[in-house]
Amino acid sequence: MENNKSTLVVFSGDLDKAIASFIIATGSAAMGNQVTMFFTFWGLNILRKDQGISVDKTFLDKMFGKMLPRGPEKLGISKMNFGGLGAKLMKYTMKKKNISTLQELIELAQELDIKMVACTMSMDVLGIKKEELIDGLEYAGVASYLADAQESKINLFV
Amino acid sequence: MENNKSTLVVFSGDLDKAIASFIIATGSAAMGNQVTMFFTFWGLNILRKDQGISVDKTFLDKMFGKMLPRGPEKLGISKMNFGGLGAKLMKYTMKKKNISTLQELIELAQELDIKMVACTMSMDVLGIKKEELIDGLEYAGVASYLADAQESKINLFV
Amino acid sequence: MENNKSTLVVFSGDLDKAIASFIIATGSAAMGNQVTMFFTFWGLNILRKDQGISVDKTFLDKMFGKMLPRGPEKLGISKMNFGGLGAKLMKYTMKKKNISTLQELIELAQELDIKMVACTMSMDVLGIKKEELIDGLEYAGVASYLADAQESKINLFV
Repeated sequence: MENNKSTLVVFSGDLDKAIASFIIATGSAAMGNQVTMFFTFWGLNILRKDQGISVDKTFLDKMFGKMLPRGPEKLGISKMNFGGLGAKLMKYTMKKKNISTLQELIELAQELDIKMVACTMSMDVLGIKKEELIDGLEYAGVASYLADAQESKINLFV
Repeated sequence: MENNKSTLVVFSGDLDKAIASFIIATGSAAMGNQVTMFFTFWGLNILRKDQGISVDKTFLDKMFGKMLPRGPEKLGISKMNFGGLGAKLMKYTMKKKNISTLQELIELAQELDIKMVACTMSMDVLGIKKEELIDGLEYAGVASYLADAQESKINLFV
Repeated sequence: MENNKSTLVVFSGDLDKAIASFIIATGSAAMGNQVTMFFTFWGLNILRKDQGISVDKTFLDKMFGKMLPRGPEKLGISKMNFGGLGAKLMKYTMKKKNISTLQELIELAQELDIKMVACTMSMDVLGIKKEELIDGLEYAGVASYLADAQESKINLFV
C-alpha cells in the first residue's frame, strides 16, 4: 500500500464519538497512513487538561470555560448519558473488557505521530487558551484542514 | 491545484454544525474548488425563510412546519442549548469576536457559487414547500448527490 | 462509470440518521457501486432482532441489552423525539407519502448485496451477541473497515 492520508474533523465532544474517532485514527496510523485529526467546537474539550489553568479571560470566556468539560475523564456520551452515569458505565465496561480508554488512545495517537490540530477559530469562540490544552498539538484554521483533507483518501466528520 | 470538488451532506439543523459546514464549504470554494451542499432532513431548516409563508398544506405538514425552526436565527445548538440561551450566547460571542454569522456565511456561499441543493424527498417528508425556502437553491434527490459525491475529493456528512 | 466503492460508518442509532444512511447506501448500490456499511456503537441497534433472544450474559450486558432499542421499529429520532412520538409521526408521514420504511430499506440493502458489517469491538462493549442480530451480516473490526474505506470514493460517518 502506498503512502495514504486520512483526515478526521472531530466536532463532537461526546465520549463515545471521541473513542470512535481515535480508534479509526490510530487504526489508520498503525497501517502506515499519515493521519490528521482536526479538533473543532466541542471536540476541543477532548484536548483540555483536567486541572483548571489560570489564564486571563473575559467574564463570558470564563463562564464557557466552567461549563465545558475538561478532558477525557469529564466527557459524557451522546445517548443515555443520564447525568454522567452512562459515561461511567461505558468506561467501566470497556475497562473490564480490556479496551483502551480514551486517555490511552490519545497517548497512542501521539506515539503514532498523528497530527492533532486545534481549530484556532473555535478556540476563539469558546475562549479556550493554548495553556488549557494538552501538549504536542498544532494550531491552525480551516485552510490548513482543507489542505490535508484534499490529499486524503479517507475524510470523516465526527 | 487542479479543479477539485467537495460535497457536504448537511443533515443536521443545529446552529453549531451549520456554521461548521458553511465554514468548510466556503473555505473550500475560496480555494477554487467546486462545492456542493446537499441539505436533507433537519438541514432544510437552515434554508427556511424566517417569515411564515402561506402555502396549501395538510394538517400534519402544518404541524411539522410550526415545530421546525425557520432559518438561521431560530436554530439551536447541539449541546448546552438551554432552550435557546446557548445559541444566543454563541451568536453573541461570535459577533463580539468578529466571526461571520450563519446568515453571512450563507450569503458568502451564494456569492462563491456554492451549489446548494435541497433534498426533495426530505421536503416531502417534512412537508416543506419551495416557497418556504430561500432563493437560489437547486432541488434534487439522492442520485444527484451521489453523482457529485463520486467526483469529490472531500465528502462529509454533517 | 467504472466500478466504485462507497463506505459508510453507521455510528448513530437514530431512526432519521439510519434512514439517511440506507438511502445513500442503497442509492449508491443501485448505481452499480460496491457498498459497505460498518455498524458501530449505537448503529448496532438498527441490526437487532425485535424479539428478545435468550443468550448467556453478565448482569451488566443484560442491563445494556434491556436499555438499547431492538431493531428499526424501536429507534427514536435525533430531534423532537418526544418519548417516541416524533419517531411515530415520522414513520406515519413517510408511510402516507409512500417512502420506504427502514425495514424495507434494510431488505433492499441485502438484495443489492450491500456488505453490512457489525463492529465486533462495539458488540463486545455493549454486550451484544451474534444471535441477537439479523442474518446475513459480516463481523469485523476497524482494520477491515479501513481496508474498504481506503478504496472508496465516498466515505461518510453518520
